[in-house]
Amino acid sequence: MVDVSAKADTERLARARALLRCTRATRDALLSGAVGKGEAVATAKIAGVLAAKQTGALIPLCHPIALTDVQVDVTKAVDGIAIEAVARTVGKTGVEMEALVACSVAGLALYDMGKAIERGMTLDGVMLVEKRGGKSGTWVNARARRTPSRRR
Amino acid sequence: MVDVSAKADTERLARARALLRCTRATRDALLSGAVGKGEAVATAKIAGVLAAKQTGALIPLCHPIALTDVQVDVTKAVDGIAIEAVARTVGKTGVEMEALVACSVAGLALYDMGKAIERGMTLDGVMLVEKRGGKSGTWVNARARRTPSRRR
Amino acid sequence: MVDVSAKADTERLARARALLRCTRATRDALLSGAVGKGEAVATAKIAGVLAAKQTGALIPLCHPIALTDVQVDVTKAVDGIAIEAVARTVGKTGVEMEALVACSVAGLALYDMGKAIERGMTLDGVMLVEKRGGKSGTWVNARARRTPSRRR
Amino acid sequence: MVDVSAKADTERLARARALLRCTRATRDALLSGAVGKGEAVATAKIAGVLAAKQTGALIPLCHPIALTDVQVDVTKAVDGIAIEAVARTVGKTGVEMEALVACSVAGLALYDMGKAIERGMTLDGVMLVEKRGGKSGTWVNARARRTPSRRR
Amino acid sequence: MVDVSAKADTERLARARALLRCTRATRDALLSGAVGKGEAVATAKIAGVLAAKQTGALIPLCHPIALTDVQVDVTKAVDGIAIEAVARTVGKTGVEMEALVACSVAGLALYDMGKAIERGMTLDGVMLVEKRGGKSGTWVNARARRTPSRRR
Amino acid sequence: MVDVSAKADTERLARARALLRCTRATRDALLSGAVGKGEAVATAKIAGVLAAKQTGALIPLCHPIALTDVQVDVTKAVDGIAIEAVARTVGKTGVEMEALVACSVAGLALYDMGKAIERGMTLDGVMLVEKRGGKSGTWVNARARRTPSRRR
Repeated sequence: MVDVSAKADTERLARARALLRCTRATRDALLSGAVGKGEAVATAKIAGVLAAKQTGALIPLCHPIALTDVQVDVTKAVDGIAIEAVARTVGKTGVEMEALVACSVAGLALYDMGKAIERGMTLDGVMLVEKRGGKSGTWVNARARRTPSRRR
Repeated sequence: MVDVSAKADTERLARARALLRCTRATRDALLSGAVGKGEAVATAKIAGVLAAKQTGALIPLCHPIALTDVQVDVTKAVDGIAIEAVARTVGKTGVEMEALVACSVAGLALYDMGKAIERGMTLDGVMLVEKRGGKSGTWVNARARRTPSRRR
Repeated sequence: MVDVSAKADTERLARARALLRCTRATRDALLSGAVGKGEAVATAKIAGVLAAKQTGALIPLCHPIALTDVQVDVTKAVDGIAIEAVARTVGKTGVEMEALVACSVAGLALYDMGKAIERGMTLDGVMLVEKRGGKSGTWVNARARRTPSRRR
Repeated sequence: MVDVSAKADTERLARARALLRCTRATRDALLSGAVGKGEAVATAKIAGVLAAKQTGALIPLCHPIALTDVQVDVTKAVDGIAIEAVARTVGKTGVEMEALVACSVAGLALYDMGKAIERGMTLDGVMLVEKRGGKSGTWVNARARRTPSRRR
Repeated sequence: MVDVSAKADTERLARARALLRCTRATRDALLSGAVGKGEAVATAKIAGVLAAKQTGALIPLCHPIALTDVQVDVTKAVDGIAIEAVARTVGKTGVEMEALVACSVAGLALYDMGKAIERGMTLDGVMLVEKRGGKSGTWVNARARRTPSRRR
Repeated sequence: MVDVSAKADTERLARARALLRCTRATRDALLSGAVGKGEAVATAKIAGVLAAKQTGALIPLCHPIALTDVQVDVTKAVDGIAIEAVARTVGKTGVEMEALVACSVAGLALYDMGKAIERGMTLDGVMLVEKRGGKSGTWVNARARRTPSRRR
């Protein structure tokens, strides 16, 4: 781990994104509630939020973080289902991994609920969209800008 | 959850794959040991193996599974770092999610160790390569075949 | 722990129930989606399912169990919100605790989402409704019979 | 989750309570040490304390909290066994759920140790007794006042 | 991990031991209940049992195991406190690590409760005493034999 | 638990140590990479770091701590393999247990990887080497001084 003892507590935010590529039929089945007992979207969001809180247990060199907020959004995309996660804290280190873990696990939870109808779905483009706060300040992923990302 | 009480215990295997897209400089730094105290590859493998064992806690509708084997491979690819995971069990339900979780978390662990040098790395192509065993038998991902995958 | 090494693997089921007592306004807000971003019921169910899988980590003398099914139902009751959970396994020991843990945690998750509007909600009547399988066979809670419980 | 990034760190306390209803014979067996190898009470307390620390992993929308104290009391009641838990922190959000989780899991751990002698025990009255600190200040449960609750 | 898919399910047992070296005053304070609110021994046993169930999450290459029994004993020794743990399963792989993890964590839990009175306590002799079952059959630690170990 | 609500947040450090006693052949096999796929040392370090972050879940009366650093070293000793762990935080309570848990679990992970060649390895001398910060300030283990310990 990187020793962050001497770092100041600052407000930090990270936004990440992923795309679960699937057919329109699978996408619509997952988003409309035709599979997963109609609760696929809510289940995936909860899975993402809970996983974000386990980041320090999953990613070996991550510091345990007192997250002050995690939001996971699951929305319709042209070629599948878009997942976006925002993590926030006031602390000594960033929450990039928390946002990325939330996106990945939410995407995999959707895959799990839809795999009986399409085993070939692919989770693509798991990436950091932006981060704010900390010594290095704001960073925005140039690649992520191309696809518009809703602000909250 | 799907009730699997009446299913037979059969040998099952799942193989998944992911690609952490990054520059050659980042790839070589991670694989050669120039970052992560020279242990980035081993750290990512261990993260993947441990995460596979947490699949039932991460993916809400997954059954807890007595995994008999998990292997995670991290290798050099043209456009980044390839991750492949194999999960095995003798049980009532498949281990697709275990293999996918192992790949994703191993990939995110690599991202974490390399993010100081390249924050824009993207985890792509998290997909099931093949599954064997169970009622539905063997399935091979046509898309995954295009890229050769080493057998074990 | 009780040594169950010599017990046979048999099909086992347990059904548990709880009631989150609250005002009709709170009940309707939780069930209709006016709080918890419209996903309070799905969130509580998922919390219950995931908690059932953690039973061995929560209840000290419980054996770890390969659950083959967990279902959590959240429904409208006259004096609050009824929670019912069913757990199943094929194994050497019963799943009573898994069903009880699922009910309790689902109920507490509902409390958490509604506490901003009614802090005085009470979780009542957390009880085993029935258990089947194992050496002692079927047991039905006489007290639980009074309130009709839907079969699945 | 509710974003608490902008909240101040204040001292917070929550007290919760539950009652495990059982026959006097079961109650006395559990409290006197005739079951659970004489350590049923200590086991239940430890289960409650450990569960409080897992609240963020059990209750989906709870923030992870750096608890500064958790106390669980298990005492004789007229109609069963009374459980009371106090949780404390200095932080941005309350510890109501931590106290409620501690009570519930301590009660279920007692149920687990006594179920061989009385399967029909019921966990009742899981409720918040009081909370202090935070923006909304002190709140006392009028219903809980009727039954006297020892102060610490 | 070692692939154990093809191994037979057999009854397995492992017994491990450790010694927490401390002064007689500390030993007596911990064993008599003068510290840890009189529940130090029960707390340490529970910590050991719960930790045994987490072995697969703690030791990277351990298979998750459906333990059928874990017992932890804490007894007075000449030069401190002796801890002995027995783990049992019917499965494809041994439970040596489960017994060793139980001993170590029980010992560390005792250290934690006594460290205010003797910070220099040392956990010594964490060793496997015997293992039975599996392809390699019974093994007894010659070194452990010197100190008599009670049978159960 | 001890109520630490009123304690000040100060920088804290703890250093712990352990020795896995084994033959030179086993030691060299583990350290040189002849077992554990050449990654035994990295695997043990990661196991120690991850376990340190689980201390609050393993040791019942430990407070959850926002660790700012954990380092685990695994080095050659005359009579086996030496493990040293350092834990740091800025908080209300010390990190002694975190350092001790890291050492113990790293040692047990090494045992796990080497047990096929030497089942009789013993984990010895798990002890606190020093602690700094907090109300009681610096403490150094006189017994640990005899064996020189590298500073970082």
